[in-house]
Amino acid sequence: MVGEREARMALCALVPSGALAFARALLEFGPVALWEAFASQGEATSWGRRALRVDLPALQRATDACGARFIIPGDDEWPAPLAALDVVQVGQQAGQPVGLWVRGQPLRAEGQVAVVGARAASGYGEQVAVTLAADLAANGRGIVSGLAFGIDAAAHRGALGMRGLSTAVVASGVDEPYPAAHRHLADTLMGSGALVSEVPPGERPTRHAFLARNRIIAALSDAVVIVEAAARSGAKNTASWASALGRPLLAVPGPVTSSLTATPHRLIREGVAILCTGAADVDEVLGPPGAVPEPDGRGAPRPVDALADALLEVRDAVGAGEDVPVAALCLRTGQPMVEVLANVSELVERGWLEENPDDATVRLPRRRGR
Amino acid sequence: MVGEREARMALCALVPSGALAFARALLEFGPVALWEAFASQGEATSWGRRALRVDLPALQRATDACGARFIIPGDDEWPAPLAALDVVQVGQQAGQPVGLWVRGQPLRAEGQVAVVGARAASGYGEQVAVTLAADLAANGRGIVSGLAFGIDAAAHRGALGMRGLSTAVVASGVDEPYPAAHRHLADTLMGSGALVSEVPPGERPTRHAFLARNRIIAALSDAVVIVEAAARSGAKNTASWASALGRPLLAVPGPVTSSLTATPHRLIREGVAILCTGAADVDEVLGPPGAVPEPDGRGAPRPVDALADALLEVRDAVGAGEDVPVAALCLRTGQPMVEVLANVSELVERGWLEENPDDATVRLPRRRGR
Repeated sequence: MVGEREARMALCALVPSGALAFARALLEFGPVALWEAFASQGEATSWGRRALRVDLPALQRATDACGARFIIPGDDEWPAPLAALDVVQVGQQAGQPVGLWVRGQPLRAEGQVAVVGARAASGYGEQVAVTLAADLAANGRGIVSGLAFGIDAAAHRGALGMRGLSTAVVASGVDEPYPAAHRHLADTLMGSGALVSEVPPGERPTRHAFLARNRIIAALSDAVVIVEAAARSGAKNTASWASALGRPLLAVPGPVTSSLTATPHRLIREGVAILCTGAADVDEVLGPPGAVPEPDGRGAPRPVDALADALLEVRDAVGAGEDVPVAALCLRTGQPMVEVLANVSELVERGWLEENPDDATVRLPRRRGR
Repeated sequence: MVGEREARMALCALVPSGALAFARALLEFGPVALWEAFASQGEATSWGRRALRVDLPALQRATDACGARFIIPGDDEWPAPLAALDVVQVGQQAGQPVGLWVRGQPLRAEGQVAVVGARAASGYGEQVAVTLAADLAANGRGIVSGLAFGIDAAAHRGALGMRGLSTAVVASGVDEPYPAAHRHLADTLMGSGALVSEVPPGERPTRHAFLARNRIIAALSDAVVIVEAAARSGAKNTASWASALGRPLLAVPGPVTSSLTATPHRLIREGVAILCTGAADVDEVLGPPGAVPEPDGRGAPRPVDALADALLEVRDAVGAGEDVPVAALCLRTGQPMVEVLANVSELVERGWLEENPDDATVRLPRRRGR
């Protein structure tokens, strides 16, 4: 029988990150029982055979060897906003990370903005990403991105250029952050920020892991800014996560003659993203850096993670800009109707939700600038 | 005693175009009485002295000499949508033109889109304006603009390049359209379209006339597209007219690093303009070219000018995207409350307005793509 930390580390090595069915099973059975359920199948099943090949002592050695630490929910360093990933889903992805390998400084749970976009960015896009990240960092905000070529790297560099804090969430193990060309960038950002992955050391990134890490980028950030993204782009997935999590989504416009503006322009046109021309637009949405951004003008602000779990579940089930029928919150949270109604009342009373009695829908409170 | 046509021509020469107080006086007294009121003052007042200097036979000769015609409200060629200018105001400007000098083909009353923007446009902006106008013209839409350097000229050229129809509303007399460098462009567009001014032949453009013509550009168009405009720009005035007239307003985004995108981006961010990446976005807002664009899905479409005058007044007093308190419609139309209520009811019934009984406001019906 392994402990929770070992079970979580083993599960990270065994199952694909962010898979919906697995996330639901983890919530239902807990990490220890779930790991035992896999491991006990032994040679009888493919999951069992894979579980037998998970070498926990080797994983721990690889973790130590690269100077990483493995953190899990409940640890002091675990960013509370990640819990919201357990109550929303995008496509077939869901779930807060089973655990995270971290190199560098302690993870921040707030005051960070994600700046993400195309790998094959234009000079214009990289210039905007550098300037935007630098201006945000100068105001004390951390920059979260994915260390990828193009916009991601430009965002990290903009923050670091201002001696700012930057966090990179990678789809590979943190021992050999992908892409290898950005190893020096990764080393530099660990000085003030952190390198993070839910994939064990030694693992190469998979297509699946590239998508899965987008949910972590969105969850670690107070807002997400898309700088450039073609019609088919991973940034669209990050945008979906931002919306699902109720994080403000912004997008930077650019020449309509560039295919890299297709996704930002579509998101703005459809009202999904707010048009962003620079750091001032982010400040307008989030309020001044350092301020607790919500609720607005309704008594003393309280951090969202101070809410009881059942309240948090309901509140996190309401996406930014959507009017959610109260009935839909039963489906989204799994709470019985009577409980949802009580929780909605309390959330409305405390300023976390706004109610439209006409059509029995609720929405997030409007902030200034929205 | 002069006739209405002569009175209107004389008034065009006497009073600044689009001045609010004058427009209101014209509505109250009619052109003949208003002209006589000025002319009868003789040498006693400055208006009287100026009226004495208006040389109607010389004006008529100048009109004939450049092959222009002078049209007035009530003429077959007078575009009905101009009447809406009598019931809205922007700043201290209002009023449909007292008359119009026209060279070229008969004015179109529908099926036209305004494409306007900065004089000191960028290469990017001109490229976008040419392409947009060409694509709109290829779909059978006419292009309205102001013949100015930069975006205006690019828009005219884009339309003409597709053998399309283009209308230029200028702030000078139509005999010597301003700027002189675009005389050949003006000659060309008269082959299929028209050159229009409310300023008499022989007049040089004034700052006032440049602003005043923007309301004609907006009123002649089914929609207005702003391509590039710095923070201080005449295009902002055209945008205000589009909003006041309930014409859909679109704006083309561009590099946030260019000062010429300040106004388009602000208009989009604030929800005043719809983001436009090309002709398809205009088509989405207006419906397919040739179709009567409204109302949508509520019985057979009827052209807006088929409405009785009092109904039209109320309907035109509601701008795009605004929720107007019914009480405000009394002020805007000058109709008594009981009449406004009756007219609102009829407009709602016929699908021309939507009512929000909760707060006693009305709005234009939502179209697809908004």
